Amino acid sequence: MAGNSFGQLFRITTFGESHGVAIGVIVDGCPAGLPIDIEYIQAELDKRKPGQSKITTQRKEADTVQILSGTFEGKTTGTPIAMLIPNEDQRSKDYSHNTDVFRPSHADYTYFTKYGIRDHRGGGRSSARETAARVAAGAIAKLLLKTQGIEVLAHVSSVGKIDAPNISITNAQEFETIREANIVRCADPATAEEMIARIDEIRKQGDTIGGKVSCTITNCPVGLGEPVFDKLHADLGKAMLSINAVHGFEYGSGFTGSEMLGSEHNDIFAKESDGSVKTLTNFSGGIQGGISNGMPIEFKVAFKPVATIMTNQNTIDAEGNNAQIQGKGRHDPCVVPRAVPIVEAMAALVVADHWLRNKGSKL
Amino acid sequence: MAGNSFGQLFRITTFGESHGVAIGVIVDGCPAGLPIDIEYIQAELDKRKPGQSKITTQRKEADTVQILSGTFEGKTTGTPIAMLIPNEDQRSKDYSHNTDVFRPSHADYTYFTKYGIRDHRGGGRSSARETAARVAAGAIAKLLLKTQGIEVLAHVSSVGKIDAPNISITNAQEFETIREANIVRCADPATAEEMIARIDEIRKQGDTIGGKVSCTITNCPVGLGEPVFDKLHADLGKAMLSINAVHGFEYGSGFTGSEMLGSEHNDIFAKESDGSVKTLTNFSGGIQGGISNGMPIEFKVAFKPVATIMTNQNTIDAEGNNAQIQGKGRHDPCVVPRAVPIVEAMAALVVADHWLRNKGSKL
Amino acid sequence: MAGNSFGQLFRITTFGESHGVAIGVIVDGCPAGLPIDIEYIQAELDKRKPGQSKITTQRKEADTVQILSGTFEGKTTGTPIAMLIPNEDQRSKDYSHNTDVFRPSHADYTYFTKYGIRDHRGGGRSSARETAARVAAGAIAKLLLKTQGIEVLAHVSSVGKIDAPNISITNAQEFETIREANIVRCADPATAEEMIARIDEIRKQGDTIGGKVSCTITNCPVGLGEPVFDKLHADLGKAMLSINAVHGFEYGSGFTGSEMLGSEHNDIFAKESDGSVKTLTNFSGGIQGGISNGMPIEFKVAFKPVATIMTNQNTIDAEGNNAQIQGKGRHDPCVVPRAVPIVEAMAALVVADHWLRNKGSKL
Amino acid sequence: MAGNSFGQLFRITTFGESHGVAIGVIVDGCPAGLPIDIEYIQAELDKRKPGQSKITTQRKEADTVQILSGTFEGKTTGTPIAMLIPNEDQRSKDYSHNTDVFRPSHADYTYFTKYGIRDHRGGGRSSARETAARVAAGAIAKLLLKTQGIEVLAHVSSVGKIDAPNISITNAQEFETIREANIVRCADPATAEEMIARIDEIRKQGDTIGGKVSCTITNCPVGLGEPVFDKLHADLGKAMLSINAVHGFEYGSGFTGSEMLGSEHNDIFAKESDGSVKTLTNFSGGIQGGISNGMPIEFKVAFKPVATIMTNQNTIDAEGNNAQIQGKGRHDPCVVPRAVPIVEAMAALVVADHWLRNKGSKL
Repeated sequence: MAGNSFGQLFRITTFGESHGVAIGVIVDGCPAGLPIDIEYIQAELDKRKPGQSKITTQRKEADTVQILSGTFEGKTTGTPIAMLIPNEDQRSKDYSHNTDVFRPSHADYTYFTKYGIRDHRGGGRSSARETAARVAAGAIAKLLLKTQGIEVLAHVSSVGKIDAPNISITNAQEFETIREANIVRCADPATAEEMIARIDEIRKQGDTIGGKVSCTITNCPVGLGEPVFDKLHADLGKAMLSINAVHGFEYGSGFTGSEMLGSEHNDIFAKESDGSVKTLTNFSGGIQGGISNGMPIEFKVAFKPVATIMTNQNTIDAEGNNAQIQGKGRHDPCVVPRAVPIVEAMAALVVADHWLRNKGSKL
Repeated sequence: MAGNSFGQLFRITTFGESHGVAIGVIVDGCPAGLPIDIEYIQAELDKRKPGQSKITTQRKEADTVQILSGTFEGKTTGTPIAMLIPNEDQRSKDYSHNTDVFRPSHADYTYFTKYGIRDHRGGGRSSARETAARVAAGAIAKLLLKTQGIEVLAHVSSVGKIDAPNISITNAQEFETIREANIVRCADPATAEEMIARIDEIRKQGDTIGGKVSCTITNCPVGLGEPVFDKLHADLGKAMLSINAVHGFEYGSGFTGSEMLGSEHNDIFAKESDGSVKTLTNFSGGIQGGISNGMPIEFKVAFKPVATIMTNQNTIDAEGNNAQIQGKGRHDPCVVPRAVPIVEAMAALVVADHWLRNKGSKL
Repeated sequence: MAGNSFGQLFRITTFGESHGVAIGVIVDGCPAGLPIDIEYIQAELDKRKPGQSKITTQRKEADTVQILSGTFEGKTTGTPIAMLIPNEDQRSKDYSHNTDVFRPSHADYTYFTKYGIRDHRGGGRSSARETAARVAAGAIAKLLLKTQGIEVLAHVSSVGKIDAPNISITNAQEFETIREANIVRCADPATAEEMIARIDEIRKQGDTIGGKVSCTITNCPVGLGEPVFDKLHADLGKAMLSINAVHGFEYGSGFTGSEMLGSEHNDIFAKESDGSVKTLTNFSGGIQGGISNGMPIEFKVAFKPVATIMTNQNTIDAEGNNAQIQGKGRHDPCVVPRAVPIVEAMAALVVADHWLRNKGSKL
Repeated sequence: MAGNSFGQLFRITTFGESHGVAIGVIVDGCPAGLPIDIEYIQAELDKRKPGQSKITTQRKEADTVQILSGTFEGKTTGTPIAMLIPNEDQRSKDYSHNTDVFRPSHADYTYFTKYGIRDHRGGGRSSARETAARVAAGAIAKLLLKTQGIEVLAHVSSVGKIDAPNISITNAQEFETIREANIVRCADPATAEEMIARIDEIRKQGDTIGGKVSCTITNCPVGLGEPVFDKLHADLGKAMLSINAVHGFEYGSGFTGSEMLGSEHNDIFAKESDGSVKTLTNFSGGIQGGISNGMPIEFKVAFKPVATIMTNQNTIDAEGNNAQIQGKGRHDPCVVPRAVPIVEAMAALVVADHWLRNKGSKL
């Protein structure tokens, strides 16, 4: 089974290459009757689009989304929702020097070997441009979740070794306002300044740097997640790992949890005065036995540094000859500011899917 | 879609609860003509079985596997392979004190809320006992991969804050011999001693401790992995996160990679004298653009400490009343020594699945 | 993807060969809280079991079903329900004469060529014995549907050229009582007599004969079916065609409808006094645009004559040499009496699946 | 799981409504390296397009297909192939009289009840316009199959009670030439004349008539089909039944087979002088045990008469009031001439899918 679909009941299929006619997505399984605000979808895409600040690629693409099907008079009809994002700035000549040369730590070599053919104009299908389609689809998932009061909220928690303090989210809108007030999309303004300076420094060196995105899902009802393989965190992990440049995923206590004792790590249950069940700590990250427990769902995603750097590197070409390569296109010095909407989109897709899947769990 | 199946072309479906009649698995999609060595399957199960050493649970179960279908005269026939593992030691009385009380950081509360019903005898379906079925299925995947020279090799790389040095695997059998020579399943004998002492200490305190398992897949051909969602590492990540107690997954440079510069992180291609392509470093962990690149595939899995501890903890019961609970069963002080065959099994299932999926990638 | 699973949300996976240890099935996705009456399941199996009358095979198997998992105190728990049916009467010597000879119109040649290996003891996996697992799973689906008032009711409507008149079902229990009162399972007693005599005559000739099963699903709510590919009748059709010996499927007006005019065929809508919507005729067979419309769902299934006959036939062996073969086992002269519970089981599985799938169709 | 995808390894997802912006399809899983001839795809679409003759709807749409992704320099790249067909002739005013009135034997009532919302401009998603997307995707499947010598060849075998004689296909091109020489697409010229006269007569009455399409797949290798549920004929049956207006499917001996004796029906194996295995008859329709046996695959599909007729009919509206309706749009008097390319497309998709699935059947 080819790998361009994601989700079981809320299911997306994306298509398109970085230098083709267009990219796009089909959302299949969205319930009928959901009001679709195309401006909301566009606003999500705008957070991901290139050229938005000095610390992102200077490539300019409007990334204007068009809905081709699946809605009638502003609402979903239960039929597949197709969305198209034309490719505008296909400056392929920037890439002409890449012909037949395998860029280090890109997908050129593996695609060529797997498929026996390669579109050498940029990353083709392996380009992170494909994630725009995910953001458009994720925006619909977010609209669906908002009808249930569920919010998916991510921000840049690390750039290189600069870490933001833990943020406790009490108000979704406030969180987003603070995060969007700085170009690195960190919800801690002081750390944001440091991060921006660091990325700018790296950019001037022609180098790139990695980072982390942290995500919280608030108001998720108890019961989402399908043991034993489709645990909620397993599907979140797969979703995140499917994003370009992601090298790690952890939820709740994560890797640190592996250094803890059971007596430290256990989350003690308590009943609130309103009758709801909480845990006093949240090392479980809102998920127990693969099923949401009503606490905030918390996870973190690690992104490697962007592979395209502006300095000279050794490599080989398709014939195995030694070659040299130097990035000439317009690339991101650090991917995490633009990755925030992608993380949110993929998380929203997972939660929407599991929200639908949970409908049949009991008679 | 219910969540008890894993894989697309090499697909398993597991069933069974910790205190029911039996657990088991159906393997569907294994190619015909594969010789099946039931003693090999049993040996894999023996690495996971309880009661094997002083640092695992003292519960005794032979975990004897029986093949019900899918083979004829010692070979697979292309039909589904069903395997059954009867539950022998269903000492339910150990659990009678748990009725209606939600054990902290277990799945009791979430299962009860999701399904409206709960088998309170142990973890039921959420028990790690289910992973025995995965190990049996994974053993068949390993046999399939061995016909291609592919080996899946894991060991305990951390217990709490005790970390083993990085191990470079040159010989699969040697690696396994060293690892199996100590009860903690660490491939570095000196670190193994430390780890065993630490677990034993924790056990005596009635507490538990987390750890990490590192895994290497050697001889994996170039081309496995299906962009853009079913990237090889995304499926490995989901597989690992679906294992009980796993809170984190990273591959290649992992979380550390997010602190690096592109100029440090890029893996430079080079052609070997035998014509094969290698990279000088392996921060990519053997996977680029979601597709294996021929280098060793390397990933790490973080396990939280086991939730069942022998000390008194506060909690609530199904009516929301305050309650107290203390572990009385026979539980593992640290899960990682028994997790090694589970990690290998799940990794083998992913690679076998992608090996089959890759068959149709080009004309 | 291997083909031993059926259904999306109410999903079954079967295993087992005719002459192996056991056959069985895993039902995944059944909602929690459904009371399971094992005697009901057994009773369904008893309708399919061999040796029940003079017009079925004289092979004797008790076909006793055992539930291995997924229930607790008589109710489903939301976890996979595994059921096992041991093979008792594996009289393989009846088949020893078949070694390496391809029986005409059996699956011997195609299995051998596809898989390169073949269990020559009877049909192996291609044996209709596998359908016992479907009947067990279908019984659970029927129990689920009964909680919604939905009944799945089939009977033998033709044996060879003997056709029963159309039966209009007003009472499910009455229908079943009449049908079970004769060994051919035709709901028209007079036709049943004719059919039985015909089968008996054919049996004495050492020959076999085909027939048809008609099925009605009553009380199905409006809305089941997922356009555009998973139309309710498309899934019913696939379900029926997956049953051994089925060569045709039609619903509503079926093949006859292709000879009609639109003005004759259109089903006129009318509102009942109770506010419900009906159609004055039901050429649509209860399904419009692939979605149930609240009218009885009606379809018909054509079974070819059983391939094993007691007379001598020419054939070839695995080396391509000419050979002769004559049935010596104990086989059915006509498959339809035992096919009734199989048709009902598969139909119930489809409707249960679509009942679950429909839960997310609107917000 | 929503129902707008078909196939496992060669998988399509369609989108679009009859009166929206565009319809289209994503083909995922087509092997890389397949030359794509867009003129071939367009020619297939031209066989399905409206307005092609006096016996089809007079609605005019060019149905021009555009490839958005998945090819590079004329070959497939292994990435998803998206194709778009803009809707040109959205003469919605023809449909304004339909608002809120449920057309008899259309999908208006079931869609409205299932989704709670309905695009009343024509059939919306339930319109047969969606099948254009299938034809485009099927053309790619046919190109893939042609690289293996496999041909999928259908024609109109019945209109109402006018039946063509059985056609034995010896040469694919010759068959297509004869078939395309008449506007009803019957491969028997004499019968074609009768059929055309009959349809024309019906058209003048403002009525419609049903018919049948017969299909033969030549040169299919032995081994395609995945028991026990994804039998080749079961997937062909589902594919056909998912086409608008189809009410029946049979393969090989079909419904007639249910009236035969085993001694008549069994296909005797024989070895040809070239070493290949044949059967002397082909009541099995080229499929045994759900797996292709190398003989021509033969099946027949029954289409009901088109529901839109030009005479007055009683019905109800969304509030349940009595209403009357009369077709005013431009509709087909008989669907089968335009259904021929749809049947071929869906059959090709099934065979391409199973051709890929069979690659992993043995080691």
